[in-house]
Amino acid sequence: MLGKRVKIKAKGRIFEGIVMPSFTDKLVLKLDNGYNVGFRDYEILEVYEEEFKSPLPPKVEWKEELPNVKVISTGGTIASKVDYRTGAVTSQFSAEEIVSDIPELAEICKIDATLLYNILSENMKPENWIELAREVYKSLKKDYEGVIVTHGTDTMHYSSAALSFMLSTPKPVVFVGAQRSSDRPSSDAAMNMICAAHAALSDLGEVVVVMHGTTSDDFCYIHRGVKVRKNHTSRRDAFQSVNYPPLGKVIYPDGKIEWLAERFRRGERELKLKDKLEKKVVLIKFFPGLSPEILDFYYDKGYRGFVIEGTGLGHVSTDWVETIKRIAEDSLVVMTSQCLWGRVCDRVYDTGRYLLQAGVIEGEDMLPEVALVKVMWLLGNYSLEEAKELVKKNLVGEINESLQFY
Amino acid sequence: MLGKRVKIKAKGRIFEGIVMPSFTDKLVLKLDNGYNVGFRDYEILEVYEEEFKSPLPPKVEWKEELPNVKVISTGGTIASKVDYRTGAVTSQFSAEEIVSDIPELAEICKIDATLLYNILSENMKPENWIELAREVYKSLKKDYEGVIVTHGTDTMHYSSAALSFMLSTPKPVVFVGAQRSSDRPSSDAAMNMICAAHAALSDLGEVVVVMHGTTSDDFCYIHRGVKVRKNHTSRRDAFQSVNYPPLGKVIYPDGKIEWLAERFRRGERELKLKDKLEKKVVLIKFFPGLSPEILDFYYDKGYRGFVIEGTGLGHVSTDWVETIKRIAEDSLVVMTSQCLWGRVCDRVYDTGRYLLQAGVIEGEDMLPEVALVKVMWLLGNYSLEEAKELVKKNLVGEINESLQFY
Repeated sequence: MLGKRVKIKAKGRIFEGIVMPSFTDKLVLKLDNGYNVGFRDYEILEVYEEEFKSPLPPKVEWKEELPNVKVISTGGTIASKVDYRTGAVTSQFSAEEIVSDIPELAEICKIDATLLYNILSENMKPENWIELAREVYKSLKKDYEGVIVTHGTDTMHYSSAALSFMLSTPKPVVFVGAQRSSDRPSSDAAMNMICAAHAALSDLGEVVVVMHGTTSDDFCYIHRGVKVRKNHTSRRDAFQSVNYPPLGKVIYPDGKIEWLAERFRRGERELKLKDKLEKKVVLIKFFPGLSPEILDFYYDKGYRGFVIEGTGLGHVSTDWVETIKRIAEDSLVVMTSQCLWGRVCDRVYDTGRYLLQAGVIEGEDMLPEVALVKVMWLLGNYSLEEAKELVKKNLVGEINESLQFY
Repeated sequence: MLGKRVKIKAKGRIFEGIVMPSFTDKLVLKLDNGYNVGFRDYEILEVYEEEFKSPLPPKVEWKEELPNVKVISTGGTIASKVDYRTGAVTSQFSAEEIVSDIPELAEICKIDATLLYNILSENMKPENWIELAREVYKSLKKDYEGVIVTHGTDTMHYSSAALSFMLSTPKPVVFVGAQRSSDRPSSDAAMNMICAAHAALSDLGEVVVVMHGTTSDDFCYIHRGVKVRKNHTSRRDAFQSVNYPPLGKVIYPDGKIEWLAERFRRGERELKLKDKLEKKVVLIKFFPGLSPEILDFYYDKGYRGFVIEGTGLGHVSTDWVETIKRIAEDSLVVMTSQCLWGRVCDRVYDTGRYLLQAGVIEGEDMLPEVALVKVMWLLGNYSLEEAKELVKKNLVGEINESLQFY
């Protein structure tokens, strides 16, 4: 019955909606207003299953003169409208369906669409980043002007960082999501998607995130994929560039782009894919009283990549120094800061100097999440010695080497 | 020789400075320019120890009519000038010394001072919070108008949160620190301390953090102790209120206070101390690919308090649900968000609903760091059942119950 439209007689009334996947013994129905209701077996008096009518995707008249853009969907809130309308939870996500939801797109570009995943982004894993990077790479080899990846917002900045390292791209690779699903009047899905299309056609040669710039519908920011973070649980302008300005703005609705910072231009880099990732890498947030035994726990499991989210300029308690010294002999130990903004500098205070002596490498102004992904990528593709050198170097814009913006 | 002023002949020249504590086999000398130099035994040719002259603390003419304030020093950058001047690393931190550095203070209040610790705040531990809470409690029982705690900035917000829960106070308890030590021209130590003194005399009855409001020397913010976070590694305005406005501003240099938000007033609450803390509580930051085995690691060590820093509205991968369900039977599992800003809501998406069914409690709009300290305090002073109820309730301003500011 999964994905079917049914009427259920229960709790003294009739409920009508789509049967959703359920991880409990309840039957879960998504009502037309978007809410889910759960029913236990004994509550259900009768079920009327309606014949499932798949609406024919509307015919789109593509404008031949417009450039081609590839849309790869991975799921998340931005894709959730599709579920409601077709009734199928794992529905195909066709170009025609996207454009019937957001007709403005057909005025900007011609679209090919692929559904890679339909998952909430908290369930994304490094193996998904690899598959996604390969899928984007395949599209970049074709004659698309740019690639758009629709993605759940929870971990979109981890994925954009992963693809930034894995892919050297001569074209825009634009991640886009939505904080409110498109069946809600306040949805940001359409405007974000339209701005993403403009960014995908622009003079850009890197992986970016395009999301609302303010809570109004006036512009989207184009954030560098390795300098962006979700900084609010629910606001439409939750994504912010950290330690580097947004690369640009896409003005809505006219699509004009204002560039704000140095960026990789279209055609500047050759297309390359380096898609290995070492999964035995851990990010540990330090707090007062946390014992260093957590390092041994992972070390003993074979982990050789450690990203520490320290305090202030990049500190942990001095009782961590001995353990770090021991594991750093054959591991990559990178220090970042839970302050998030600003640069790590372990040469100011004693604690930091002991950490450097113990073999810690300063993560400069990298976000902890970005340092994590970078270490996964470095240990997957390089020797430990090479990785120790490269982690300090700016490879794709993840380290801001100028002292501006601090 | 520790704390003594010496001349050392080494590396072909003479170095002059104070012998500092060293965690390695090197002798560490703090030069008069503030830099540290390390010497190995074999590098040192000769040492001339100077007779240590402790400068007599200058005589201060206290103004009898001014109110009394207690200053408790725990160390950190704000106290670092004292080291340089007296030469002793564990020097007494007398009221006279403070006022000779910051003469404006003697125009605001009379000061008594106690040196509780002289440690960098990354070395603070929950047991230090307990000692500090008891020391502040002792002072609050006396006739001081308010108490100032000088503190390293790295973990100041953890300590202010801890004291907010442990102490019910009818008077201001003001945490203050400095991002640049007072031997640097750009130091924020004096202005922060002066603003802290004004806050300590104000109509306030709670634990707060007073730090620079901007990078200029125009005002300090008074942040609620449970709604503040260090959000920059080095800027003077690194501390920001999150999910609640600053309670007020102290205008510099005139000391006028502008109140900005609802606060506990002077005399509103009775003086009480509840100073137990359960140390077996862990904060875990989730990231894509992190295995739930980390929960078992701590559970098997006897931990029964878990604060998860999830993604977005408060999510982790669904492969965590079974483990959480198992440990939540006799543990407190609280979900917070690594977005930091905004409120956790696990009723929007399936992942969140499964987490709630598994026994996760939503941390509302509490910062992860504050939720950690609250769980330590709740499990130290209440039964598990009581703690599960209280963690959802706003006790001291840590949960903003209105939906304003989002």
